[in-house]
Parts: sequence; C-alpha cells; structure tokens
Amino acid sequence: MRRRDEVTDFTAADRQYMAHALRLAKRGLFSTGPNPRVGCVIVRNGQLVGEGWHRRAGEPHAEINALAAAGQAARGAILYVTLEPCCHHGRTPPCTTALLSAGITRVIAACKDPNPRVAGQGLEQLTAAGITTRHGLMAEQAQTLNPGFFKRMRTGLPYVRCKLAMSLDGRTAMASGESRWITAAAARGDVHRLRARSDGLLTGHGTVLADDPQLTARDVDTSWDLVQPCRLVLDSRLRIPKQARMLQEPGKVAVLYAHHDRRRAQDLTAAGAELWPIEPDSDGRVELRQALTAIGNAEINELLVEAGPTLSGALLQADLIDELVVYIAPHLMGDEARPLLRLPGLVRMAERIPITITDMRALGPDLRLTARLEKG
Amino acid sequence: MRRRDEVTDFTAADRQYMAHALRLAKRGLFSTGPNPRVGCVIVRNGQLVGEGWHRRAGEPHAEINALAAAGQAARGAILYVTLEPCCHHGRTPPCTTALLSAGITRVIAACKDPNPRVAGQGLEQLTAAGITTRHGLMAEQAQTLNPGFFKRMRTGLPYVRCKLAMSLDGRTAMASGESRWITAAAARGDVHRLRARSDGLLTGHGTVLADDPQLTARDVDTSWDLVQPCRLVLDSRLRIPKQARMLQEPGKVAVLYAHHDRRRAQDLTAAGAELWPIEPDSDGRVELRQALTAIGNAEINELLVEAGPTLSGALLQADLIDELVVYIAPHLMGDEARPLLRLPGLVRMAERIPITITDMRALGPDLRLTARLEKG
Repeated sequence: MRRRDEVTDFTAADRQYMAHALRLAKRGLFSTGPNPRVGCVIVRNGQLVGEGWHRRAGEPHAEINALAAAGQAARGAILYVTLEPCCHHGRTPPCTTALLSAGITRVIAACKDPNPRVAGQGLEQLTAAGITTRHGLMAEQAQTLNPGFFKRMRTGLPYVRCKLAMSLDGRTAMASGESRWITAAAARGDVHRLRARSDGLLTGHGTVLADDPQLTARDVDTSWDLVQPCRLVLDSRLRIPKQARMLQEPGKVAVLYAHHDRRRAQDLTAAGAELWPIEPDSDGRVELRQALTAIGNAEINELLVEAGPTLSGALLQADLIDELVVYIAPHLMGDEARPLLRLPGLVRMAERIPITITDMRALGPDLRLTARLEKG
Repeated sequence: MRRRDEVTDFTAADRQYMAHALRLAKRGLFSTGPNPRVGCVIVRNGQLVGEGWHRRAGEPHAEINALAAAGQAARGAILYVTLEPCCHHGRTPPCTTALLSAGITRVIAACKDPNPRVAGQGLEQLTAAGITTRHGLMAEQAQTLNPGFFKRMRTGLPYVRCKLAMSLDGRTAMASGESRWITAAAARGDVHRLRARSDGLLTGHGTVLADDPQLTARDVDTSWDLVQPCRLVLDSRLRIPKQARMLQEPGKVAVLYAHHDRRRAQDLTAAGAELWPIEPDSDGRVELRQALTAIGNAEINELLVEAGPTLSGALLQADLIDELVVYIAPHLMGDEARPLLRLPGLVRMAERIPITITDMRALGPDLRLTARLEKG
C-alpha cells in the first residue's frame, strides 16, 4: 500500500530532496546515539534554501539546524525531514513549535517517529496548525539508517549485530587457541567502523580472560572526536580481572553479573566499571534476554556482539540476534580447528537456523557477508 | 612485459576482433574436450568476412570454419584466432596449410599452443611462408577459457576444481549424516553447468556408498546433446556395488583401485566400468598424484571433484587442487554438524592453507565463492 502511495503521490523532486536529507542524516552515523540519525532539507520555490542534520544528543535537531540555515527563506517553504518532527520537550524544545514560527507551509517526513511520546502526534499538531503534512517517502531507508532506534522504541531491546571472523571453512582459531587477526587490515578497519557506529559492544568474560581486548573503536575517520561505545561484559560471577585492558580505556564499562561477590565487585567498581545485576538463568548464568533488556534500558540503540562461539551461539539460539556480520579470511583451517558457533542440541536439518544474506563485499583479501536472522 | 606489448602494438580494432573471437570460442565450453575451446575471426579491409569456432574433437578447427565462411574474401585478410594455428596432422589436417592456401596475409593469435607438437612452430611456419604473425593479445583470457588444456599440456595433470557446499558456518551435514541438498535450485543448476564443462567428475567410494549419486550433468542448456563427463571413482578395494546409480547412466565410468579382487572386478566390468590400477600409498589407498596422472593421460582437461571432507581434504593437502568452488547456503548448522574439510595434522596457524578468492556471486538465496589455491 505504502509503495503505491509513494509512486502516485510524491514527485521526482520530492524524492531527490528526501534522498539528500538521508545523506545528511548519515553524517550522524557515529554520534547521535541514543537519538536517531536525522537529516532535513528546506526548499522554497524549487530552490534549496537550508539544510541540516542532527549531530549529537543535547544539540539541536536536524530541523532546527536547517531552519537556522534558511532564516527568512523558510517562510512559505517545504521542509523534508527523514523522521517526523518531535512535539515534546526532551533535551531540546519541540521542533513543531519552531516549524510553525518559521512559517513552513508543508512538511514531508520519511516516516513517523516510533517514540511513543511522538508517534504521529508531531504531524497531527502541524496539520492542526494548518500545515500540509505527508509521510511515507523513503521510509524504509530512513528506518534502515536507524535500526537500533526503531527497534528499541518498539521493543525496548537494542538492535543486535553479531560480528564473526572465520576461515573459509568456518573456523576461528586453531585447536591450540592460536588465532589473533585472521583477517587483514581492510576488514579490521571495517570492524572499527562497525564499533564506532554502535552504542554498545558486548562480549563475554571468557573473551576478556582469553584475549584481553581493548574493545574500543580506533582509527575511524569521524571528522570529530568519537565518543567510545559503552563496553559491556557478561560475567555471571564477576571473574574478569581489574587489570583488564577494557577497564583502562576511555568511556563507560558495564559488567552484567548474576552472582555478587563483595571483594570482586569493589575491585571492578574501583577500576571504573558499573555493575548491573541480572537474574541468573537455570544454569546460573546471566539470563540473556534480561541482559539485553537492561542494555536497551540504558538507551543503547545498536549493540555489537564480539564474543566467542559459546556466547554468540547462545544469543542466536535465544533468538536475540538481528544481524550477522561475518568476515571471511582466505584460508582453510581444517576440522581440528575451533568452530564458528556452538549450537548445542542442534541435531536435525529442520532445526538449523535460517538466515538471509543481504550483502557481500570484498575487503582487501577478505570477504564480508551480512545476513539477517529470520525471526521465528 | 606482455602487457606493455599489448598496449603499444595492438590497435583498438585488434582488441575488438579478438574479444569477438573469444566469445565465439566460449560456445565450445561444453563440447570441445579433449581439445581446447578456440574461436576465429577473419577481417578484410576493416570488414568482418568470416567467423568460426571449434565445436567438437574430430570436427574442423575454428580457423577452418572461419575460412569456409569467408570463402574468397579470405584472400589478403587478417585472421584473429584465440590459439596458435596447429601445424600437425591430428584428427584433422594442419590449419597452417589451410591458412596459406586461403591467402591470409596476417595472423594474430591470442597465445601460443602449449601442445609440444605445436608450441610456436605453427606461427614459425606461417612466418617462414611470408605471413605476418603476432601473438600475445588477450592471452590471459584465452588461457583462462582453457585452464585444463593448458595445465595438462604443461604438466600432464588435469585442472582440478573441488566443489563444496556448506552452511555459512562451514558445515556440510548434520552429525546424523542428514544433508541432501543444502543449497537451492539456482546453485544446483550451477553445479550441473560446472559438471557439463568438465571432462571428468571425481568422487570417492564413500560418497558412492553413502549417497549413491548419479554424477551426471542434467538440465544444462548446451544447444545440442551433451556428452556426459567421464565419472571417476577412487575405490582402493573395489567396494562400490555393481548396482550403483552412476554405473547405470550414459557415458564412461572408470574405477581407480589399488587392490584387485577378481569377483568384484568382474561385477564392475560387467556393469560397464573401466578398471584402472593405481599404485597404493603407504596407507594402502590409491596414491592421489598417480591417480591424477592417470586421469590426465586419459585426456581429461578439467576435473571436478565432488567428494566428502576426507578425499577433498586429502587432495588439498597433497597440493592437487587448483580451484575451490564453494556454495554457501543461508543456514547455520552449529559445531556438532559435519566439517567441510578434514585436514588432519593441521594444528598451527602457519600451516593453514592460503587461498585467493577470485569471484563471489549470489545464486538465488545461496552464494558461490571461487578461490584459487596458492601453490606452495
């Protein structure tokens, strides 16, 4: 239905301006969290008179920046925006008020804001004030740019990407554990960009003990100082050492645990970590859905999982992963090497986990596949 | 060096005509074995006056077909051919003689014929007779079209492709053995085209006993009746049953064995199979390099291996595979499922087998990766 609307109701010029607004929105890829990436274009008499994008939570929204750029030229103009203008007082005043004062006469939004405090009311307020409003132009692209914001507003959970790196035959490390960087520089740079766009990075205590990763986004060209994503560790019994490298890096660290231990808790707190208590599951481990709910409550839109085969497999089997990003190194490691994913109890073909491959590309000598999980 | 020659010495028109000759050559993809795929174009005063391609061993070569098409117009013309014209009596008379009689004055060949009975002598004979000859235009493309012919002429061994099909996490079947068709129709059709362009299909006795495949090329649009590739089984002790489906299909079957057994040999011979004795290796199995030498001696240019993880892995470890063709199905099967390749003794990262990914594409919901083995 929406597709038909788009074909019949929007002009080629509308599409061009919205595409431009989407490109502006993308400039916020690394910085808007927990807010969505939003772009805005103002057009008067067929001339682009102002453009803007949202850069960082607490700073002006895309519409306000575009209105400032347009000045008096906004009077009588059309405003294209990739998300419905807000109508509530958040960290900044409502955009609807600013649009009305500026004299905008027509608003085209890519899609409605899924935030329950907006959810169509922004457009309704504008309509009630005499502005012509429309939505549904390039809605899919606007949502794809903000998978975490849309999922979190709708479900309370973050959008979960699981990053995996393997040899062509699906192995991550030799039986001895020898691994470290099975992919080359281009793929590693890509992982840092994935980290930089994420609001949180999740790993397990096993990876911290085995690899002691920094778990930071490094060498990403964001044009300004990057705020490091929150580092999150599932560590049921608070076993990671206070000297862990991820505790020394700038930014927030949260340790999600199921069993308290006063001394270890003090050590980790002293090392700067937040401790989040989570219900244990029947095996005494952090219950995964509860953990993700806590992560969603912390306003994390996009979560990148970088964990071993056990935690990655458990999240998959609990149906908590939205997307796999798999780096394939041009090597064969053989059947004695370590598996990509532990999926215990999966014994029949009918039980295998279906995915949809959505993208593949070469990154230097390596490949990257992106796949969506088919939700059961 | 060759690239520099190409850039400076051949014209844009030369490249266009040779590209056309290569397209003609490709029409023989499914039928020329054991001969190479060759195309030919004749040009006089900037006009294409004749074209031809080689279709089947025993039938006329590309040059003869093009000369027949050109008739009298060949006199004083340039002949473009994707392989040096032959100068020996094979199944047909030498092409050099026909070129001279037709009055061709200039010959441009993509590359020299690696056949030791030609190997530059064809061009030399033409030069000696007063024809201007050149070679080295699009040589790589001409050789890529005939990997098996070039490798066999140079080494006596066939060009070996190993076909594998796996889930995204590198598994081929559930632990129970349950598998059959993990890929969808487009990938299966692609496998049949791979089979159809091959001169031989190789499997192990274990696959015959477990899956009883027909091992034929089916539903491939070749525009004429396809000659089935030779089916080859490594079966050290002649254990495959005489009822095996691959013995019932049209075309030649060869069983390569290391230990004779009179009754089983009689059964298999009665079922239509040829029996090829091969030296055993230290474990009593068919020695793999000897087996491939025998296959090369049987004039098989391109060999497709469709075997289980043990034989595929052993061929890889013996450095006998040139190319991997890996179909990836959009599923995850987990660590309890069966591995892609058994590579016993591979325990250190330094020993992992390097490959170069040369192509990737989507085939319906599946992917196909092609990789070249880095020869050590």
